[in-house]
Amino acid sequence: MNTQSSTLAGQPGTDPFEKFFAVIPAGGVGTRLWPLSRAAAPKFLHDLTGSGSTLLRATYDRLEPLSGNRVMLVTGEAHRDAVCMQLPEVADEDLVLETEPKDSAAAIGLAAAILFLRDPETIMGSFAADQVISPVEKFQDAVKEAIYTAATGKIVTIGVKPTHASTSFGYIRTGAALEIAGAPSAHAVVKFVEKPSEKVAHEYLVSGDYNWNAGMFVAPVELLLRHLKANEPALYEGLMEIAAAWDTPDRIAVKKRVWPTLPKIAIDYAVAEPAADAGDVAVIPATFSWDDVGDFAAIARLNNAREVDAVTVMGEGARVFSEDSSGIVVSDTKRVIALIGIEDVVVVDTPDALLVTTRAHSQLVKRAVDGLKAKGDTDVL
Amino acid sequence: MNTQSSTLAGQPGTDPFEKFFAVIPAGGVGTRLWPLSRAAAPKFLHDLTGSGSTLLRATYDRLEPLSGNRVMLVTGEAHRDAVCMQLPEVADEDLVLETEPKDSAAAIGLAAAILFLRDPETIMGSFAADQVISPVEKFQDAVKEAIYTAATGKIVTIGVKPTHASTSFGYIRTGAALEIAGAPSAHAVVKFVEKPSEKVAHEYLVSGDYNWNAGMFVAPVELLLRHLKANEPALYEGLMEIAAAWDTPDRIAVKKRVWPTLPKIAIDYAVAEPAADAGDVAVIPATFSWDDVGDFAAIARLNNAREVDAVTVMGEGARVFSEDSSGIVVSDTKRVIALIGIEDVVVVDTPDALLVTTRAHSQLVKRAVDGLKAKGDTDVL
Repeated sequence: MNTQSSTLAGQPGTDPFEKFFAVIPAGGVGTRLWPLSRAAAPKFLHDLTGSGSTLLRATYDRLEPLSGNRVMLVTGEAHRDAVCMQLPEVADEDLVLETEPKDSAAAIGLAAAILFLRDPETIMGSFAADQVISPVEKFQDAVKEAIYTAATGKIVTIGVKPTHASTSFGYIRTGAALEIAGAPSAHAVVKFVEKPSEKVAHEYLVSGDYNWNAGMFVAPVELLLRHLKANEPALYEGLMEIAAAWDTPDRIAVKKRVWPTLPKIAIDYAVAEPAADAGDVAVIPATFSWDDVGDFAAIARLNNAREVDAVTVMGEGARVFSEDSSGIVVSDTKRVIALIGIEDVVVVDTPDALLVTTRAHSQLVKRAVDGLKAKGDTDVL
Repeated sequence: MNTQSSTLAGQPGTDPFEKFFAVIPAGGVGTRLWPLSRAAAPKFLHDLTGSGSTLLRATYDRLEPLSGNRVMLVTGEAHRDAVCMQLPEVADEDLVLETEPKDSAAAIGLAAAILFLRDPETIMGSFAADQVISPVEKFQDAVKEAIYTAATGKIVTIGVKPTHASTSFGYIRTGAALEIAGAPSAHAVVKFVEKPSEKVAHEYLVSGDYNWNAGMFVAPVELLLRHLKANEPALYEGLMEIAAAWDTPDRIAVKKRVWPTLPKIAIDYAVAEPAADAGDVAVIPATFSWDDVGDFAAIARLNNAREVDAVTVMGEGARVFSEDSSGIVVSDTKRVIALIGIEDVVVVDTPDALLVTTRAHSQLVKRAVDGLKAKGDTDVL
């Protein structure tokens, strides 16, 4: 807890922070990080930056100065034990376990519905569990601006200034500046756009009018649910039914009955895009650096880990010998790994699976997972 | 046993074959094949060609039609159990176990001395345990010519016609044809030359006068020992002392006392080169193909193993997935190995050590072993 949170906590009644509740959707296997990240041990449960914290724990620690213990976690039932070990602070009623994946509108919508029924004035902030952000203070400043902006009746995304013409992210087209007290950098959002072609991504980059949609947003739960109800009424009804039972003895039974019936849809389609069309979305452009740790090249970039010659080495107890080599070694074993005369290699060594690729091909690791699935080698996925 | 050996066996008295005794020096770790080959499991104990036989067993099987069970094996004491498992046919008195490595003159010289004291007319043939030769029939034809030539009082090397300007082998300069019954291809040897520079190797290649010294020779033990005595009298005396005790109850005690005192010298210096200067050496140019399996590139070349796309896969139970990749995978584990977009890679996966290099660098694998030794990682060497 830093001094800023004490300051915030010291302003009761004068600010919307008392209504803030953080939600962390922890989903996604991180297929492009196979074999390190896999179904049983997804990306957010790994320390991919050599910081000593898992991505999930770092996400919590980043939010805690703003939210205190008002944090709700949404994840797969299979990860319950691992998540509880990582985040013992999260109360049982704030741990939403999906019995099967139902995409982001159901996951985030259920959190919103539960929080709404507890207090309809809640402002929720949703932050994925598998991102790397620094410095933390600038992130917290952006979230604060987002909270002030949300309190005026907006769904507020935090946009990331593009560093290159990425085709892996959706974009947010920024509109006019908004005049909101406490949120000097708030702007209107003209629209969300899907992952673009390389040419279009380049146009976005040079125009300066676009930010990456990093999937971080802050919103009054009432406003979010209003858009969800308008666009996906069946989903809304199901979620409200589960939420109504949540803080009662019927929680598990109702969830078990209703959750499997819910439609699968992304929050982008169910809420964000229609809300933007209605003029209900704002953006806070981030001034922090942000990485979704999408592949092993990102891991090398983000790690201040040991370098053995020109080889970035990750993993406790890694025993790497290299000569005339460069690249990344991620070691999840105690085996000796020798690299001789191989450039820009990516080696990921785990007890039951080994990946050898190049930095340039690290985006294609998903293909190995698809290929192994097709071959029936599912034991290592 | 093939029909040719029956033919040979059917010519008692008319040929020198009855005096023939094969010696197999099985030494050398095969450092360039680390981590597959290592001190505890050297090269000759591996099936490196996917034939189903270890190199040692294949060496024995290649000689047996010529020598029957007259085969002596010289190896390190540490390999006793593994060698006996591979070659149960070798009698205890024909198994020479070195208590410490003393180089080739001591190893081969002791075999010669033991055989000499049993029968001074013995013709020995020495063939390293870690080479790949085919077709076997042409090898046997060359050995037969070598035996006929040795019987005229020569140390007879079997020279391998160079296929490229190798700087990894010594060369044999061939002289005039010899007129020897039963050995139409026998030639005199002008001299042995050490591993040459690339430029000189190229000159040797185009001249056509040079063969590779593959370390295979056939010689009357009496002649071999005569040269050894002249050049290395102390070594000779020590070996004769052990040999005199060999077929007595004192074998182990005398070996234990004398062996550690013997000078270390290669047979090339102690016998072959001075014998060539004396005009006592002949050569049979080989017509078979020969490979010393010097590195992983050789293994890929020699294997008719499974190909997964452009990847040569060696190892029972190997589970390899590859895409847009080429090279060699040697798997000594059951782990899944995925290669994505990596060209000409060499991956050698063993339970406690992993090597990643390229075909072009496979000759440099020795450096990994040296480097790991320097770091103290001797458990995997």
